[in-house]
Amino acid sequence: MCGIIGIVGTTEVASALYDGLTMLQHRGQDAAGIATVDGSKLRLHKGNGLVRDVFDQAAMSGLRGCIGIGHCRYPTAGSEGSAEAQPLYVNSPYGIAFAHNGNLVNTETLRREMFEDDRRHINTDSDSEVLLNVLAHELQIQDRMELTPDHIFKAIAGVHARASGGYACVALVLGYGLVAFRDPHGIRPLVLGERVTAEGREYAVASESVAFDVLGFKLVRDILPGEAVIITDHGQLHSRRCAEGAPHTPCIFEYVYLARPDSMIEDVSVYKARLRMGEKLAEKILRMRPDHGIDAVIPIPDTARTAASALAGALGVPFREGFVKNRYIGRTFIMPGQGERVKSVRRKLNAIDLEFRNKNVLLVDDSIVRGTTSKQIIQMAREAGAKNVYFASAAPPVRYPNVYGIDMPSVSELVAAGHTEQEVERVLGADWLIYQDLEDLVWAVQDGNEELKRFDTSCFSGEYITGLDQQYLEQIQMLRSDDAKAARRA
Amino acid sequence: MCGIIGIVGTTEVASALYDGLTMLQHRGQDAAGIATVDGSKLRLHKGNGLVRDVFDQAAMSGLRGCIGIGHCRYPTAGSEGSAEAQPLYVNSPYGIAFAHNGNLVNTETLRREMFEDDRRHINTDSDSEVLLNVLAHELQIQDRMELTPDHIFKAIAGVHARASGGYACVALVLGYGLVAFRDPHGIRPLVLGERVTAEGREYAVASESVAFDVLGFKLVRDILPGEAVIITDHGQLHSRRCAEGAPHTPCIFEYVYLARPDSMIEDVSVYKARLRMGEKLAEKILRMRPDHGIDAVIPIPDTARTAASALAGALGVPFREGFVKNRYIGRTFIMPGQGERVKSVRRKLNAIDLEFRNKNVLLVDDSIVRGTTSKQIIQMAREAGAKNVYFASAAPPVRYPNVYGIDMPSVSELVAAGHTEQEVERVLGADWLIYQDLEDLVWAVQDGNEELKRFDTSCFSGEYITGLDQQYLEQIQMLRSDDAKAARRA
Amino acid sequence: MCGIIGIVGTTEVASALYDGLTMLQHRGQDAAGIATVDGSKLRLHKGNGLVRDVFDQAAMSGLRGCIGIGHCRYPTAGSEGSAEAQPLYVNSPYGIAFAHNGNLVNTETLRREMFEDDRRHINTDSDSEVLLNVLAHELQIQDRMELTPDHIFKAIAGVHARASGGYACVALVLGYGLVAFRDPHGIRPLVLGERVTAEGREYAVASESVAFDVLGFKLVRDILPGEAVIITDHGQLHSRRCAEGAPHTPCIFEYVYLARPDSMIEDVSVYKARLRMGEKLAEKILRMRPDHGIDAVIPIPDTARTAASALAGALGVPFREGFVKNRYIGRTFIMPGQGERVKSVRRKLNAIDLEFRNKNVLLVDDSIVRGTTSKQIIQMAREAGAKNVYFASAAPPVRYPNVYGIDMPSVSELVAAGHTEQEVERVLGADWLIYQDLEDLVWAVQDGNEELKRFDTSCFSGEYITGLDQQYLEQIQMLRSDDAKAARRA
Amino acid sequence: MCGIIGIVGTTEVASALYDGLTMLQHRGQDAAGIATVDGSKLRLHKGNGLVRDVFDQAAMSGLRGCIGIGHCRYPTAGSEGSAEAQPLYVNSPYGIAFAHNGNLVNTETLRREMFEDDRRHINTDSDSEVLLNVLAHELQIQDRMELTPDHIFKAIAGVHARASGGYACVALVLGYGLVAFRDPHGIRPLVLGERVTAEGREYAVASESVAFDVLGFKLVRDILPGEAVIITDHGQLHSRRCAEGAPHTPCIFEYVYLARPDSMIEDVSVYKARLRMGEKLAEKILRMRPDHGIDAVIPIPDTARTAASALAGALGVPFREGFVKNRYIGRTFIMPGQGERVKSVRRKLNAIDLEFRNKNVLLVDDSIVRGTTSKQIIQMAREAGAKNVYFASAAPPVRYPNVYGIDMPSVSELVAAGHTEQEVERVLGADWLIYQDLEDLVWAVQDGNEELKRFDTSCFSGEYITGLDQQYLEQIQMLRSDDAKAARRA
Repeated sequence: MCGIIGIVGTTEVASALYDGLTMLQHRGQDAAGIATVDGSKLRLHKGNGLVRDVFDQAAMSGLRGCIGIGHCRYPTAGSEGSAEAQPLYVNSPYGIAFAHNGNLVNTETLRREMFEDDRRHINTDSDSEVLLNVLAHELQIQDRMELTPDHIFKAIAGVHARASGGYACVALVLGYGLVAFRDPHGIRPLVLGERVTAEGREYAVASESVAFDVLGFKLVRDILPGEAVIITDHGQLHSRRCAEGAPHTPCIFEYVYLARPDSMIEDVSVYKARLRMGEKLAEKILRMRPDHGIDAVIPIPDTARTAASALAGALGVPFREGFVKNRYIGRTFIMPGQGERVKSVRRKLNAIDLEFRNKNVLLVDDSIVRGTTSKQIIQMAREAGAKNVYFASAAPPVRYPNVYGIDMPSVSELVAAGHTEQEVERVLGADWLIYQDLEDLVWAVQDGNEELKRFDTSCFSGEYITGLDQQYLEQIQMLRSDDAKAARRA
Repeated sequence: MCGIIGIVGTTEVASALYDGLTMLQHRGQDAAGIATVDGSKLRLHKGNGLVRDVFDQAAMSGLRGCIGIGHCRYPTAGSEGSAEAQPLYVNSPYGIAFAHNGNLVNTETLRREMFEDDRRHINTDSDSEVLLNVLAHELQIQDRMELTPDHIFKAIAGVHARASGGYACVALVLGYGLVAFRDPHGIRPLVLGERVTAEGREYAVASESVAFDVLGFKLVRDILPGEAVIITDHGQLHSRRCAEGAPHTPCIFEYVYLARPDSMIEDVSVYKARLRMGEKLAEKILRMRPDHGIDAVIPIPDTARTAASALAGALGVPFREGFVKNRYIGRTFIMPGQGERVKSVRRKLNAIDLEFRNKNVLLVDDSIVRGTTSKQIIQMAREAGAKNVYFASAAPPVRYPNVYGIDMPSVSELVAAGHTEQEVERVLGADWLIYQDLEDLVWAVQDGNEELKRFDTSCFSGEYITGLDQQYLEQIQMLRSDDAKAARRA
Repeated sequence: MCGIIGIVGTTEVASALYDGLTMLQHRGQDAAGIATVDGSKLRLHKGNGLVRDVFDQAAMSGLRGCIGIGHCRYPTAGSEGSAEAQPLYVNSPYGIAFAHNGNLVNTETLRREMFEDDRRHINTDSDSEVLLNVLAHELQIQDRMELTPDHIFKAIAGVHARASGGYACVALVLGYGLVAFRDPHGIRPLVLGERVTAEGREYAVASESVAFDVLGFKLVRDILPGEAVIITDHGQLHSRRCAEGAPHTPCIFEYVYLARPDSMIEDVSVYKARLRMGEKLAEKILRMRPDHGIDAVIPIPDTARTAASALAGALGVPFREGFVKNRYIGRTFIMPGQGERVKSVRRKLNAIDLEFRNKNVLLVDDSIVRGTTSKQIIQMAREAGAKNVYFASAAPPVRYPNVYGIDMPSVSELVAAGHTEQEVERVLGADWLIYQDLEDLVWAVQDGNEELKRFDTSCFSGEYITGLDQQYLEQIQMLRSDDAKAARRA
Repeated sequence: MCGIIGIVGTTEVASALYDGLTMLQHRGQDAAGIATVDGSKLRLHKGNGLVRDVFDQAAMSGLRGCIGIGHCRYPTAGSEGSAEAQPLYVNSPYGIAFAHNGNLVNTETLRREMFEDDRRHINTDSDSEVLLNVLAHELQIQDRMELTPDHIFKAIAGVHARASGGYACVALVLGYGLVAFRDPHGIRPLVLGERVTAEGREYAVASESVAFDVLGFKLVRDILPGEAVIITDHGQLHSRRCAEGAPHTPCIFEYVYLARPDSMIEDVSVYKARLRMGEKLAEKILRMRPDHGIDAVIPIPDTARTAASALAGALGVPFREGFVKNRYIGRTFIMPGQGERVKSVRRKLNAIDLEFRNKNVLLVDDSIVRGTTSKQIIQMAREAGAKNVYFASAAPPVRYPNVYGIDMPSVSELVAAGHTEQEVERVLGADWLIYQDLEDLVWAVQDGNEELKRFDTSCFSGEYITGLDQQYLEQIQMLRSDDAKAARRA
């Protein structure tokens, strides 16, 4: 998961890209970068760390120009190094800077084709570099006379034909303008905004609409599945669907956890969707145990707060912030002669004992992935004196890997993979474990926009809209396991 | 405002001090430091920035020893430079490392005495350095034979006799142990904890009890006003009240805003006190306008969330998180040819328009100081489509400077100074402004511990328990005004 | 002027490249970089600063592989930024890393062709990036089946046909090997070395043979003018002259000043050549003033020491180190209220007064370019008490710009441009100024290898072997003037 | 060995201190620092590294004031950490900043007294901190009324009475002025300079006169053994000998190796003294082997160049720079799977083979300490083709540790300790080894100033003017052995 943004402005854009990235920072805190076009030169600055740490006044001063793109990165398998920070750049043809959110499922095939057929060298394990080179190659084989929107749309149609997966992309083509496009299923989000200034109309694209809010841009619409949008250096907007016919399946996990609550995605308020998730959970609880005896609903901060507050309201039970989140977590230092003494969850969360003592508490989280944190939290609630500890997940059991851009652990590390809900309840040590039903989750989002017919729910259902090689899942398993990660870091 | 911690352990303490400081980081994000005693050597590392940025593995490895103190700093007038990061150190007598939370009101007098009578050079504008040298001098004039608890208690009685203000302090005396003490009125908080390990009993002191939670220490009690606690290198605890007779007046602002909700201060749960502040506000609202017509209660995150949720519950009105806080705020860069284009509050908060549109909303904040942010937030609520914007403050009008360790702006910058509530309402542009009454605020805290008879409420009432020179308030005015700060930075 | 090196080894090469670069560091202290081939990946690390500052253990550990290239940069007009540090890299075709010493005189034409015909974007003002893209384009238009030495030699012939100037280059072609080539006139130096290890034969190329000395490589020969050498990943060496017929004109300034004395260039010992320069100067002095009355010969350290010592020997006059060079020069800080108080030459050189007092001294420098330093040194000699100050230059008057890779100031800043030797003598304030005659300088080098028939002596003679546009000299004048440099830095 | 400087100016002094330190940098490249007095505040900046790396514009801007001191450090046993960078500071009494060149031989006794009698904590292993606290204590016990020169001179007499060793010191006493003093035997050098400006007379003290040359100060005289010089804030100079009767024994190693050739020490030109060392060596050679058959005299650069050139002249043999020194030495990186492949001396020196081939060469170095480098150099000369390799040392055999401020290896690592010259010749592998005789070395220096009757020559003779405990030498042995150093670094 990453955040991307692009702006074609009428005046300098670097500070707007910077502000926009800080609003998308929840999508990736691992690396950040901005590229701008300054006359005939590309200006690029990127590095590992938070947006506020990567850019200083000197870096910003170098990012001259009225058109630019930005990226903040969540580290996924194969993209953890600093060489893979985005935007990426190739100088042939034209000079292209590129930033990407998502994941391809046929990277290995594309990588082989690049080397053997296209004589392009891919120097990292990042599939963003592969995607950029597919785009570069498709542009290179267009007629080499003057570049036109038609050439670019054809090239992107070529990308869609070759690449398989979920992706939302922005690119700068030097001497031409900004290009943004989204995968044929519209799995990863991408929105279009505009702002009218005294100097003329300005356009922006971003992963989430919150980036527009801070900049005073108005949300125009979502980029359509398979659609490409071109905004030239001169501010002219062209758009075309470059892939047709594929079902539209936006990623439902954006609503569960990834996106900011104040974003609109596919015309659905994320905040409202989460309130509805809480209401649906309440219905299920009342259905299952009308005499639930719950004394307090306690969210695991921050994401679950919205659903939990709606859930508490619907149950008519007090909503209490029994866990306080530490916003200044430090590193873990092992001192000579000492092992680690503090459970890591205690560095992140602290329980207010008075809110637990002798109560039946319902803890609410957005989802349960590995289960290790949930287990420790339940234990903390008990130590704080809770009589009974119930646990609700606003999402169904996560049983399958996500392959479209969300970096989940390998299947063998998912607590619900291959297990019934009762088995998970026992592993977590909860007195009662309530999972959201998948149809309820889908309804909670769909209720905001009835035109949405399907979603990518693969990590709950195991159904992959793009199709997958069995090999691919095995490879993911290998890349994502904790052992594999530890090995890469060493 | 700052955070302090001290531990006398049975094994290495540096990582525990580090973890504790991350739990106190909300009290000061400007600088951090740790000092430990390693045999006959003092180890010290400090720097500007967050705890997680100041310490790396190399720094931690140098901080050997089983006894140490830590500090995180909020920048106050005269202590903004890196030279003033704490702990501070003097090598005569004995070698003393020192960390301090609070503020003195007779610094200038002490500074003069230091120079003229005690021949001690004070090299910074920090009153912590003054206080340390008062302590050093009082220790130096004790009988120079073997150091005993009695000598130290006498020295601290000497400090209390000379220093006037609010202060909580920890010190390491080389070759002796850890010393902690609190001002005679108990204005600034300081708590004592203990932990029993296989190797023996360990003691800790800290500004707030949350620091104990993460470390597995048990809160024993608050250090008493004027009390000093000594824990020797060998783990022996001695304590004595070194000043008697002064009224006990803990700072009420700790409950309103400063402290973490999960802390216990003077045996009162901060979280519960804030819930009661919300309930009292609800009572006042129902008293003033039984037909208030409020559609939603919306907190200004994060501190006000607790009071707002209790307020909403008591009113029977939906509690909605209409503002989302950006946790990754960046710097403001002015690009060539451009002024600042984004209101600073928009970098911190974003409104979810759907929660405001056509509603009567009650915004709730913990307090109103300058009023500039409140004004912008009210404006944001209107732009998001609110019908009527009401605004409640969980604290009474702030009309006087705080001189005991909370860095408020100069009086001339306090929006309520010299103004009626109606005038403030008009300045902020609220349709209705509700301030907590001072007696209600006092009740909200007192209800948790009936032994608390008085509080320091000087910023609301203008009554200073220690007495003040008129000169002092004028000096504060000069130091704290925005112009003065800008000048110092330049 | 820059230093380049390339090694195809049988084991890891990064530390050898590093050691080699420290031996070439006199050719450029502005930036440094190393690229290696690690399986199918290119590893690259570069940055501004000295070799010893750019590389740390982490950087070195990343530079895995048995084949690599390195570069150290002297800042020339248009290549001062960190983006222009070398090696440079393009990913299409094949992936090519490239490092270069020299300068092109038809950069603007090539730059235009790149953009218009080859659709390759050049993002910097560095002519190295242009040259790399010419090479990339020439490789790209070769038959796209398997890459062979013949394809590469043809591509380099294409480079020679398009590029005009002095250049020595090393490149890594991914999946193939190392390529090194030298301009058709052999203006810039490049030597080939080999080492036989237990694991097999290893090859290296470098700007100067001193790089081989530290690594235990044996100097095999100079790369010929227009020749290209390929060493494959498997250690096979291929070579071919890719341009024929041009006169061989090595840069004579390498012998005067640039190269280390312990280097062999074109089979001539630089040290011996400098001794001969001193002898020739002595002959001229004795010819002009048999009764010269010189009491001491004093070199301007370090380069001139060799010539001066031979000169002193031939005159039979004591050789005295009257100037001591400061090896730890710092920056110039202007304090508030103060202008610069110390002449810059006094930061670099200090006179031993006793060696000057009441003597006729002959100061010897390798050459006189701007004349500002020489003038200050002559002044220092007078202040130290010299009776008469004579000044000898081991090179003739520098009257024309160098366009083949030596960054001289603009013509208007050359003290000898448009002036007679007598006029320069007056400007410098010398009692007698002796310039080497050009034929004597040529002889001093030629005497070491009689096969050398011509040299590039353009900065003395104004004759440019490649031909030049009048425009080009005007452009150089603009780029190199002090005003232009000051403007670029600001 | 370290460099110290102090200036009392009429305008800002920081940039002058900086320039002066760059001229003293040869005395210590390990750490640097400057302290100035800015009104009533002490300004201090210091750090590990070269002067040019420790100070940037921000650091310099903070160093306001017209009076200040500076220090550059050579790392000696117990002073390698960054905490020990100088100037050091204590705030009681008065506030004193202090910088020191030298070494005490009774540190342990003083350290004990500090702790037990003076209740002053010494937090490092540096004897500079001990010396500063002796000074602070001696000042503190003076009558506490107004500070006068007499009080300060008495305090320094107290320091001389307690401290034993070689030391030259500068200190700032806040509110008073600058104080400089030198040990009773005058072992370490310290000179006084002055400059008359439009604003009045300025004074400076420094380890070597070269620091004055760059600043335009005139060398007035050496500070006398045991003398203290006070220059008040108002520019008044007071001086007094605070210890009498001890023989004057300046360190002869300053002339052999430590000092810059352009310095005057005790009215003797270091450069001239080194010329005389060469002449004396020539006499010895001609005496021992009139038919020496030497073809070339080759110095080991840089220090030995002066003596070698005089030696060559006296022998009538060509002087040839057969070794070229690499000025850009890097670190040694061990790559995976590889040991170190390059002899360390090859990183520092490169031989010009033509100067060695088939010749009898006489290599000349300033002294031989461990012998490891000499051995490798002799080996290099052989590999370069020399027929016979002779080796001359301008100093006698080093057989005893230096305890007055020069960090030599432990006795067991000195190649000449306990060995005859013939044995050393064999160990080094020289065909002939010629050591200077001690009386010749003494003569070479004395000839410049006949008033100098004795020198500290302890590392050649084993005679320690201050007397020494046997214990002390054992302790030095332990601290300085390579094993001990390796352990401290780990």
